[in-house]
Amino acid sequence: MEGEFNIVSLSKIRVRYEETDQMGYVYYGNYFTWLEVGRTGLFRDIGMPYTMLEKRGLRLPVTDAQCRYRSSARYDDIITVRTVIVKLTPARIQFNYQLESEAGNVMAYGSTTHAFVDRTGKPMNMSKKDPDLWNLMLDRLKEKGV
Amino acid sequence: MEGEFNIVSLSKIRVRYEETDQMGYVYYGNYFTWLEVGRTGLFRDIGMPYTMLEKRGLRLPVTDAQCRYRSSARYDDIITVRTVIVKLTPARIQFNYQLESEAGNVMAYGSTTHAFVDRTGKPMNMSKKDPDLWNLMLDRLKEKGV
Amino acid sequence: MEGEFNIVSLSKIRVRYEETDQMGYVYYGNYFTWLEVGRTGLFRDIGMPYTMLEKRGLRLPVTDAQCRYRSSARYDDIITVRTVIVKLTPARIQFNYQLESEAGNVMAYGSTTHAFVDRTGKPMNMSKKDPDLWNLMLDRLKEKGV
Amino acid sequence: MEGEFNIVSLSKIRVRYEETDQMGYVYYGNYFTWLEVGRTGLFRDIGMPYTMLEKRGLRLPVTDAQCRYRSSARYDDIITVRTVIVKLTPARIQFNYQLESEAGNVMAYGSTTHAFVDRTGKPMNMSKKDPDLWNLMLDRLKEKGV
Repeated sequence: MEGEFNIVSLSKIRVRYEETDQMGYVYYGNYFTWLEVGRTGLFRDIGMPYTMLEKRGLRLPVTDAQCRYRSSARYDDIITVRTVIVKLTPARIQFNYQLESEAGNVMAYGSTTHAFVDRTGKPMNMSKKDPDLWNLMLDRLKEKGV
Repeated sequence: MEGEFNIVSLSKIRVRYEETDQMGYVYYGNYFTWLEVGRTGLFRDIGMPYTMLEKRGLRLPVTDAQCRYRSSARYDDIITVRTVIVKLTPARIQFNYQLESEAGNVMAYGSTTHAFVDRTGKPMNMSKKDPDLWNLMLDRLKEKGV
Repeated sequence: MEGEFNIVSLSKIRVRYEETDQMGYVYYGNYFTWLEVGRTGLFRDIGMPYTMLEKRGLRLPVTDAQCRYRSSARYDDIITVRTVIVKLTPARIQFNYQLESEAGNVMAYGSTTHAFVDRTGKPMNMSKKDPDLWNLMLDRLKEKGV
Repeated sequence: MEGEFNIVSLSKIRVRYEETDQMGYVYYGNYFTWLEVGRTGLFRDIGMPYTMLEKRGLRLPVTDAQCRYRSSARYDDIITVRTVIVKLTPARIQFNYQLESEAGNVMAYGSTTHAFVDRTGKPMNMSKKDPDLWNLMLDRLKEKGV
């Protein structure tokens, strides 16, 4: 199902003072929080907020995370997180991200892969374990994804 | 029971780059994480690690937190967190903290008050709800507190 | 000058997953980042963004911070930070904060006091060291403050 | 110079409550702070603490960061960060990391690449810009790296 989804979700964040470090830019680890803002924005966009997925018993722990930094984000900058789904299987989901300045420059590229697990942390096959949720997710992604 | 306990717990932390901000010092909110290191160190010192309290069904959410900053902590500093219990009732516990530099200067004073609540977040009277744990805590504090 | 200013600044934040802890609520130290969002929002509201103050050579390190927690904030909640200035002298400024849920319930009360210092961290008397900035700040607060 | 260095630096951290999230494990972004603890430990081991490098005018912003998560870290766990240098040129340095539980299980693999830049953020060729520092670094790595 790789590359099938055209949905693009945009989230905006404003850089907090807390997120900077003494080099005068944003600490590299904090970009991963912004990726979270991006992907949860995408779930909200398709009408399946992450709070709903959790209530349904689903968890999406990260199995792989990566960020390439091209330009340093600074305090008070407005950053747009552009999120896409690049891979979806009943066992896992992968998001790619592009972080952009107000002027449209790419600040960073990110990627996270998540396993679908249940409340106890056990990996699950979503299409078998919760086919309704799985089909709903596919439908919503198609609807929104033009 | 105010002021009855003489136990003093010392924890050391080394300041992380992540904890600084662009002013070149530690971000004020991060001191509260160090207070956490201090009070969980105290629980460990009396043989009742916080993990054990949680397994037992107890939670200690903060109801009041305060910090007075006297001298700015910097990256790579070694800070000693000196923690004492200043108040303990079956419903709540209050810790005071002194953060000290390696040279012995006081960097900050802190204070946190915590309610005893159960797994669901309901306030509890520990001496009634879990008298064994309550008495054990009193005993341990007396033993160590000389 | 205590209590003279009527300006109220409102900032909205959405709780991030990163801000929660394993108790299932927001970690107590993270509220202080939201207070930062509130006070920098106030400076923006009066046309004096904190980035401008820093460029001018001013720094506002926190000398005292406090938070009283009344109700636990949860992941994905929308929180309004209501910020007011309760004290302003040429040497320091104090903000009070009220954090409110979407339903209008008070989640927490906060307070921070800041010293005015220069680039090197030396305390300054703003009315003497930078009277233009000081008078501009007073003017803007009066204008906006009804 | 890839793969030439045998130095291995070990740092220990204890997981803080603040680092967990409501899934009950450590938030994925916080592992990157631990990687920082690992690489600054390595610099300390060879007698060139990062504070000294900064005083000398050197900065090491991250250009690429990656983490693969194999097993979830929990509150109060003791984690060992095993850090190695896998690549060093006059323009950049790459570290690999292995995070291990007390039982010796691998919790995660990490990697970060850093550019050498000056105070103003301009990329530098260390062997030309500060040959003394560059040669000292090579010597120390050889000495310790047996």
